[in-house]
Amino acid sequence: MRILLDRQSDASLYQQIYTHFRQGILSGSLPPDTRLPSTRQLARDLGVNRITVETAYGDLEAEGLVASKIGSGTYVLPPSPQLLIPVDEPDGPWPLWQRDLQAQGDLPGKNHLEEAAKSGSHPNPIAFAGGIGDPRLFPVDDYRKVIQAVLRRDGMAALEYGERNGYAPLRATIAHVLASQGITVRPENILVTAGSQQALTLVCQLLLKPGDTILVETPTYAGALDLFRLFHLKIVGIPVDGHGMQVEKLEKILQHQHPKLLYTIPNFHNPTGTCLSTPRRRQLLALADRYNVPILEDDFVGDLRYDGRTQPALKSLDPGGRVIYTSTFSKMLMPGLRVGFLAVEGPVYEGLVNTKRIVDLATSSLHQRAIESYVTVGSYQAHLRRTCQVYRRRRDGMVLAIHRHLPGEVQVDPPQGGLFMWLRLPDSLSTQKLQPLAVEEGVTFTPGHSFFPYSPDGEAYLRLNFAMQPPEAIEEGMRRLGKAIRKAAALPQDHSR
Amino acid sequence: MRILLDRQSDASLYQQIYTHFRQGILSGSLPPDTRLPSTRQLARDLGVNRITVETAYGDLEAEGLVASKIGSGTYVLPPSPQLLIPVDEPDGPWPLWQRDLQAQGDLPGKNHLEEAAKSGSHPNPIAFAGGIGDPRLFPVDDYRKVIQAVLRRDGMAALEYGERNGYAPLRATIAHVLASQGITVRPENILVTAGSQQALTLVCQLLLKPGDTILVETPTYAGALDLFRLFHLKIVGIPVDGHGMQVEKLEKILQHQHPKLLYTIPNFHNPTGTCLSTPRRRQLLALADRYNVPILEDDFVGDLRYDGRTQPALKSLDPGGRVIYTSTFSKMLMPGLRVGFLAVEGPVYEGLVNTKRIVDLATSSLHQRAIESYVTVGSYQAHLRRTCQVYRRRRDGMVLAIHRHLPGEVQVDPPQGGLFMWLRLPDSLSTQKLQPLAVEEGVTFTPGHSFFPYSPDGEAYLRLNFAMQPPEAIEEGMRRLGKAIRKAAALPQDHSR
Repeated sequence: MRILLDRQSDASLYQQIYTHFRQGILSGSLPPDTRLPSTRQLARDLGVNRITVETAYGDLEAEGLVASKIGSGTYVLPPSPQLLIPVDEPDGPWPLWQRDLQAQGDLPGKNHLEEAAKSGSHPNPIAFAGGIGDPRLFPVDDYRKVIQAVLRRDGMAALEYGERNGYAPLRATIAHVLASQGITVRPENILVTAGSQQALTLVCQLLLKPGDTILVETPTYAGALDLFRLFHLKIVGIPVDGHGMQVEKLEKILQHQHPKLLYTIPNFHNPTGTCLSTPRRRQLLALADRYNVPILEDDFVGDLRYDGRTQPALKSLDPGGRVIYTSTFSKMLMPGLRVGFLAVEGPVYEGLVNTKRIVDLATSSLHQRAIESYVTVGSYQAHLRRTCQVYRRRRDGMVLAIHRHLPGEVQVDPPQGGLFMWLRLPDSLSTQKLQPLAVEEGVTFTPGHSFFPYSPDGEAYLRLNFAMQPPEAIEEGMRRLGKAIRKAAALPQDHSR
Repeated sequence: MRILLDRQSDASLYQQIYTHFRQGILSGSLPPDTRLPSTRQLARDLGVNRITVETAYGDLEAEGLVASKIGSGTYVLPPSPQLLIPVDEPDGPWPLWQRDLQAQGDLPGKNHLEEAAKSGSHPNPIAFAGGIGDPRLFPVDDYRKVIQAVLRRDGMAALEYGERNGYAPLRATIAHVLASQGITVRPENILVTAGSQQALTLVCQLLLKPGDTILVETPTYAGALDLFRLFHLKIVGIPVDGHGMQVEKLEKILQHQHPKLLYTIPNFHNPTGTCLSTPRRRQLLALADRYNVPILEDDFVGDLRYDGRTQPALKSLDPGGRVIYTSTFSKMLMPGLRVGFLAVEGPVYEGLVNTKRIVDLATSSLHQRAIESYVTVGSYQAHLRRTCQVYRRRRDGMVLAIHRHLPGEVQVDPPQGGLFMWLRLPDSLSTQKLQPLAVEEGVTFTPGHSFFPYSPDGEAYLRLNFAMQPPEAIEEGMRRLGKAIRKAAALPQDHSR
């Protein structure tokens, strides 16, 4: 017990000890049943006479705050409610460095997605605002059994740090799963990360300095934009059309901006759902090579295709060391597992491994082993087939429901895979105006501004996750959204756009 | 299946499909029992005629590389060993940006600790080089049961993202455990992190820019130095004596260097094992306040005290928002859990929470729930008492063994707690000379240079972890170390020091 004693204070040591415990008990920070240190131990810890401690404990007991059980020790009793005091909430004045941090706007912002997920007071809200698949399809019970088996089999090893680039059998499994998708990577070039979000972080940490330029699609993944802002990067956008990033516009930007990294989501792009065409893929790689820019390929749902022709991952077009590829198990399995990976060849690989070790030492070994044990190429493919069937139906259901319930002026281009549907509102409408009305009707979505480097560009757009809700909820949700849009359209025109 | 087809190629589509699978099978990237996509599916995926795919599959089957099972699909067979081809190891030429990265020395270095742990060819090496306690004291079986119970109780919720500042009941438990140690923090000011290493990373990420100055003790935790180097900080050291950081030397440095952060390990300092005296603690806080510098208090083993008077944590002297406090469950429980936390009041707290969300979204929810379920103030205190008893004996055993087996010129100042013993070698010796001889004798330690901003300063020192080995191994290990030191001393003098 480390109690703060002030030997220069006017209060006696006895009083200080008594006050410390009284304060802790009445504020709830020492909850009932907490055992106080023995008087002998505390006297030794604090370097005071044992009688001093005994006197303090005696007074606490007399006040009914603690009870001593013979042969067992002294325990905190539940204090009577009228005596309870609130824990002081320190509220400043904060030191200058904290006030500066706040004043300079150097604190990273709130999460747009979380904000969007707030569902107001509706009794039965329907959410289309998340970034994950349907948790109801995740095999929780199977996974519980696997964890149990792994802990039985591996014991302590499952709870130790493990290899710094990740559990070797899991890296081999990842290589096999990737091979089954046409991507050839050696296990020695795979690094297991805490979700693909950490993979993006590691790449920024290693390759970029504040002020460096990064190229992204506009719009792009909001979590990546948050990250690039956190790293104080200059974000330059390349617009997306129905075939992904408009690569034709790239060369001019490469010549003028000297970017240090190009971040792209070529498959079932977040948020628009589009896929980069194969000719553009080749063109993109050639340009990146010519202008010496690394590509970071985020393939978060690259294998969730429901129809149309497949396109090769950028990584599979890479002769080696040009493309840093990242993906994740979070979308396919359980998001809280926090297991993703990246793959790249060349000296940069070792640099990323060391960066990972330095920023958080290791990724939870237990989940790595459990995933390895649970996922085989066969089981992964089977899970993928089932998931694709379910999500395809939901996508089709949402397209029909949109046509049934939303005004004809709403534009939508149904994606061939992934999780997201990207809607453009009629010109007179903004999501800023729409969102509170939608929440009122009991439906949530992600407003488009989260996905644009310059957020006003996104006011006409919204993103719907079609994978997370069953068909009935999709139908009802679109009905509500339609109602909200009609209500919003009846409002006076919003001149902020 | 995303196969790369080149419609401009001289090779026919049939040949390209055939070659893709043949290559994958013979290189092992498509392992035996992998099911190939159905011919119908693959034809659709690739936009080719089904006969094209059937012809390719037929040739693969004729070659004995796959077998089709009626009604089930086409599966990869184990290829005959003489046909196997190695997966191409891409070996460059790497793109220019990778070669630059390497040439400029911008890749973070190897882990000194890992290097030190290499044990050579000795049949039965004894390691004193780790940074954790004894895994044999960790309650693996109990923990397995808790995980099981949590998954049964919480189901899917245990595998989802959870609250962005950490599982609320766990934050309450942490607040109670801290209160039992005399540190008052509200659960609303605690952020759960992926180990305390991530806590350090988040603070750097939010508060520091490349080129900023950070003050540290010299020597200090090697993992923190790696981190500060990764963030391109200017590291300024303040020497440590038997009572911790020499705070008297601080004011001058504060006046001249304008540091943006002061990083300190006031309790059972890593690597020296010393504790900052209470007067110095007050002085340190007053100076940090006067010069407007945030303090990052790393209390990784603050409660592992075996004797001597306790000192208050810096955090408990903080009126609010001056000290960012971090600690971990990794040292007390299992290192692979990767659950640590930080605590601070004021606007900086929200900034750290958002930084955490941006860099990796969340910490594994399952482990947070399991720890919450396993750790109560009572069980924590009991575990702490047992651990302290065991480690105290090991410390005492190591001190005796050092006196018995090491030359009298080796200086050691036994710590009052923690995990580490810090040794100074006789003047004529360096750990560089000693280490290979020690490995030969079958004993490993951490060489001192890992702990100094300017590594040659550490050549006379080495760190021993006394907590991780049972008494017999400590005795034998010191015997071996003594032998290695005597061997090294007989070598010609090392003029590099």
